[in-house]
Amino acid sequence: MLTRHAIAAAALRISGRVRHTPLLHVPGAEFGVACPVTLKLELLQHAGSFKPRGAFNRLLSAHVPASGVIAASGGNHGAAVAYAARALGVKAEIFVPALTPAAKVARIASYDAQVVQGGETYAEALIASRTRQAQTGALEVHAYDHADVLAGQGTVGREFEQDAPDLTHVLVATGGGGLIGGIAAWYAGSAQVVSVEPEGCPGLHDALRAGHPVSAPVGGLAADSLGARQVGGLMFPVAQAYVAAAVLVADSAIAAAQALLWDRFRLVAEPGGATALSALLSGRFVPPEGARVGVLVCGSNTDPAKVAGP
Amino acid sequence: MLTRHAIAAAALRISGRVRHTPLLHVPGAEFGVACPVTLKLELLQHAGSFKPRGAFNRLLSAHVPASGVIAASGGNHGAAVAYAARALGVKAEIFVPALTPAAKVARIASYDAQVVQGGETYAEALIASRTRQAQTGALEVHAYDHADVLAGQGTVGREFEQDAPDLTHVLVATGGGGLIGGIAAWYAGSAQVVSVEPEGCPGLHDALRAGHPVSAPVGGLAADSLGARQVGGLMFPVAQAYVAAAVLVADSAIAAAQALLWDRFRLVAEPGGATALSALLSGRFVPPEGARVGVLVCGSNTDPAKVAGP
Repeated sequence: MLTRHAIAAAALRISGRVRHTPLLHVPGAEFGVACPVTLKLELLQHAGSFKPRGAFNRLLSAHVPASGVIAASGGNHGAAVAYAARALGVKAEIFVPALTPAAKVARIASYDAQVVQGGETYAEALIASRTRQAQTGALEVHAYDHADVLAGQGTVGREFEQDAPDLTHVLVATGGGGLIGGIAAWYAGSAQVVSVEPEGCPGLHDALRAGHPVSAPVGGLAADSLGARQVGGLMFPVAQAYVAAAVLVADSAIAAAQALLWDRFRLVAEPGGATALSALLSGRFVPPEGARVGVLVCGSNTDPAKVAGP
Repeated sequence: MLTRHAIAAAALRISGRVRHTPLLHVPGAEFGVACPVTLKLELLQHAGSFKPRGAFNRLLSAHVPASGVIAASGGNHGAAVAYAARALGVKAEIFVPALTPAAKVARIASYDAQVVQGGETYAEALIASRTRQAQTGALEVHAYDHADVLAGQGTVGREFEQDAPDLTHVLVATGGGGLIGGIAAWYAGSAQVVSVEPEGCPGLHDALRAGHPVSAPVGGLAADSLGARQVGGLMFPVAQAYVAAAVLVADSAIAAAQALLWDRFRLVAEPGGATALSALLSGRFVPPEGARVGVLVCGSNTDPAKVAGP
C-alpha cells in the first residue's frame, strides 16, 4: 500500500515542477457552518488542476521511450501529461472521450500534444489508448491506477498538512480515486478524509458498499473530471483503511458551489473542482462540534462564462 | 503624513472584516525575468478588490448618521463601500460614471446599495455625490483622499511584508493613489515601491514630474478603476518620499497580463488588477540583479468572458 515515504519522495522529485498552492482561511459563516474552513487553491496549479503532480512523478520515475508518453483522460489528466511532457521535452498523445469539454481539448492541444477524441466515456478512451500504445510502445501514464501517479497526487495532502496542520477533516472530490487515495495515504487516519462524489458518478461510494471496486454509473455535470466508471485497484485498500466517509452530492449543489466560488471568492472552479465544497454547502457533510475543515478546490478547466454571474 | 502606527491600528480595526489574502511564489522564468516573483492575490478579497480595507476602516472610525454613507467610485470602491455598509447594517448610496462596466454596477447593487450612474468620469460622479451629500448629510467615504481610507489600504502592504519579508521591490497599480500611498507609507523605503499606471491615466507619473498633483488624462482599458483624474493630496507627499519609480504601460500590455493570469494561473483579473504585473511582463520595469519582486494583483471585477481564452 502507498506509504508516506513514497509521497515524500514524490514531493522531492516533482519539486520546482509543480506549484505549492496557497490556502485561504475562511470563517465558517461564509459557508453557513459553525467551524472554520480552509480552502486549498489547487485550481491555481499548472494546467488548471492537481493532475501535474502525478504526471510529473510518473514521467520522472520511468524511462520515456522515443515514442513518448500516452494517456487516456476526461481532460485534466491529459492536460497535465501534455504539460509535463512538453516541460520534459518528450512527445505526448492524449485520448479523450466525446464528453470532454472543448475548453479541455483546446488546453491539451495548447501544450503541443496530439489529441484523439472518441468513445463516449473515459473508459472507452482508455481502451482506444491501449490499442494505440501496443502499436507505438509509448509509456502509458494512467490517470489514477498507478503507484507513481497515486504518490504524486498524495503530495497535495502533504502540502495541506504542512500548511494547515490542525485540520480535523479534509474534503476531497473523487473520480478514479488517485487524488483521494494519495491524500488518504498521507493522512493515514490523522485527519478524517471525506470523499465527495456527484450522485451521477458514485464509484467510490458504491465500491466501499460492495467491498471491492465495481462498475458505477457515469453521468451529470462533473462526468468529464469525475466519471471514471470504476475506482482504481491500488487506491481501494487505502480508501477502505483511511477514507472516513463517502458522500454524494446533487448536480445542483455542485453548480451552486461553483457560483459561490465566483461570487464570493473570484475563483473559477470547474464542476469537479467545486464538488468537495458542495458537500459542505449542501449539508451532505455536517462538520461535528470542534471540527476544523479543509476543502480541496482542485480544478479550473472550464469556460468561465459558465460559472460567473455579474 | 500617514504612519505605520496608523496602518497597524487600521489592521486591528478591520481584522475579521477583510480577508488576509494569500501569496503565490512564482519562478521568474514564468514571467520571462531572472528573479523570483511573489504575487499577492488581493483580487480574492471581499467585493473583488482591495477596497474594502479602506472602506471598513473609514466606516469603523466615524459616526455613521441615519442617512448612511455616500461615495463616488469608478466601481470597485463603490462595491466595497456597499459591502461594508451592508455588513455593518447602514445604508449606502453610490455614484458611478458612465464608464463603469455593467459587471461593477450589478455588483454594487447586489450588496443592496442605491446606485446612481451619471457623468463621464469618476471626477464628475464625485461632484454629483457631493451635491447629494449636502442634501442627505450622509457620511462621505472618499475613494482615496482620506486619512482613514489611506490607512486601510496600507494594510495590504503590512500583510505583504509580514508574509514575504524579503522583497526588494513591490509593484502596485496607481489610480487616485490610495493603495500605493498606503503601501509606500508602510514600507517607508524598506522596499522599493514602484507605481504602475496605464499610459492613458498617468496621474501619479505626471504629478511627480510637476512636483504637485495635476489634472491628468483619463482613458483606456483600465479607466474605470485607475482613472482618477488627479491623485490625492494626502498620498502625494508619501509618494514623493517613498515611491521609487512611476512607470507607464500600454493597454496592450495590460490585456496581455490579463490573458496570462488566466492562461497560466487561472486568475481572473480586471485591467486595473493586471496593470502592476504588466510592467514586469512588458519590460517597463526591469528588476535589477538580485531583486525579489512582489506584485499586487488587486482587482477582479470584470466579466471573465473578456479575459479568458480556452
